[in-house]
Amino acid sequence: MPYVNIKITREGGTTPQQKAKLIKGVSELLLEVLNKPLNATFIVIDEVELEDWGVGGLPVEEYRKQAGEKS
Amino acid sequence: MPYVNIKITREGGTTPQQKAKLIKGVSELLLEVLNKPLNATFIVIDEVELEDWGVGGLPVEEYRKQAGEKS
Amino acid sequence: MPYVNIKITREGGTTPQQKAKLIKGVSELLLEVLNKPLNATFIVIDEVELEDWGVGGLPVEEYRKQAGEKS
Amino acid sequence: MPYVNIKITREGGTTPQQKAKLIKGVSELLLEVLNKPLNATFIVIDEVELEDWGVGGLPVEEYRKQAGEKS
Amino acid sequence: MPYVNIKITREGGTTPQQKAKLIKGVSELLLEVLNKPLNATFIVIDEVELEDWGVGGLPVEEYRKQAGEKS
Amino acid sequence: MPYVNIKITREGGTTPQQKAKLIKGVSELLLEVLNKPLNATFIVIDEVELEDWGVGGLPVEEYRKQAGEKS
Repeated sequence: MPYVNIKITREGGTTPQQKAKLIKGVSELLLEVLNKPLNATFIVIDEVELEDWGVGGLPVEEYRKQAGEKS
Repeated sequence: MPYVNIKITREGGTTPQQKAKLIKGVSELLLEVLNKPLNATFIVIDEVELEDWGVGGLPVEEYRKQAGEKS
Repeated sequence: MPYVNIKITREGGTTPQQKAKLIKGVSELLLEVLNKPLNATFIVIDEVELEDWGVGGLPVEEYRKQAGEKS
Repeated sequence: MPYVNIKITREGGTTPQQKAKLIKGVSELLLEVLNKPLNATFIVIDEVELEDWGVGGLPVEEYRKQAGEKS
Repeated sequence: MPYVNIKITREGGTTPQQKAKLIKGVSELLLEVLNKPLNATFIVIDEVELEDWGVGGLPVEEYRKQAGEKS
Repeated sequence: MPYVNIKITREGGTTPQQKAKLIKGVSELLLEVLNKPLNATFIVIDEVELEDWGVGGLPVEEYRKQAGEKS
């Protein structure tokens, strides 16, 4: 019965294969740890535009620029 | 004061009229069951891309293929 | 495959029967409008403490006091 | 550690600068009120299509038309 | 930067250790698949009362009773 | 029409007055930046138990212990 929502920034490269890996990995983790059946587990992935994600009081791109590294 | 979020898969056919029916139906249900005024009830519908929705440890399209039926 | 989240204020009286009516009503609405199978529809109800719900820039109890009516 | 999700209607005009103001303002508010460090606060903004937002039992555009004012 | 929300039913037995395994597993999965740094990944677990979770148009306990198996 | 959800860890001290400040501050910010009327803005605060919040692949208390500072 679990419902899992994964929010990630849209960085122009997250492939359907990577999303499938996330879906598989999270579902199997819930099966392994809490014995939740795979077919009763919903996973929803949201890709969020960079301008819509803030951290450090800044839009993430600006935050990364100031932090001088791709976090 | 209720806030209701409805997440559905984007299957290329959910019309504005169908969304209006969902908004009307859920709002009236909350009025009928819990006496929540219509104008104090927010409904937000999210359409989720098929590759972003997982069930059975698989992206939903793959799950449906394996399950051999349109669920 | 729909996932529906219903957030309502905790007003000390929402009964399991009322919640069952909300679950039934929303699920049947999704079946009727979008042909979503009942057993592939998740509904999650969140009851939110009054001090945790704001409207009009105020906690809801204060808002209602000022608005002079139970909204 | 706070996570804040801001859902607003997509009205065709919310600029990156306005979003940056929301991110800055909410983050600084959490720092000021609860002493939450800026770099440990995530803000995610969701713009919702008008047909996907309901109030008063109606899609918001229809609601506004009937209410005769841009709410 | 990911934010992951895991909603599970409160079945009276999910231990802090199991929750720690979910947090570890999901965070490491995001690191492995999308190279997301552990310390920039937030995980929030919500335990939902059984009467607040619906599936098949029924509260989950009733659904399980009718389905005759612990799903 | 905005809906804002603020998730914070339950640290045993967030007072109703602090929550009222958050509600007031976020609502006024949305009025100022996007001209959203106060009485059409919903704010919902969720306090999350420490064992239910993960960062750095760890439950937040363990993360803070290892990081040697209250983040």
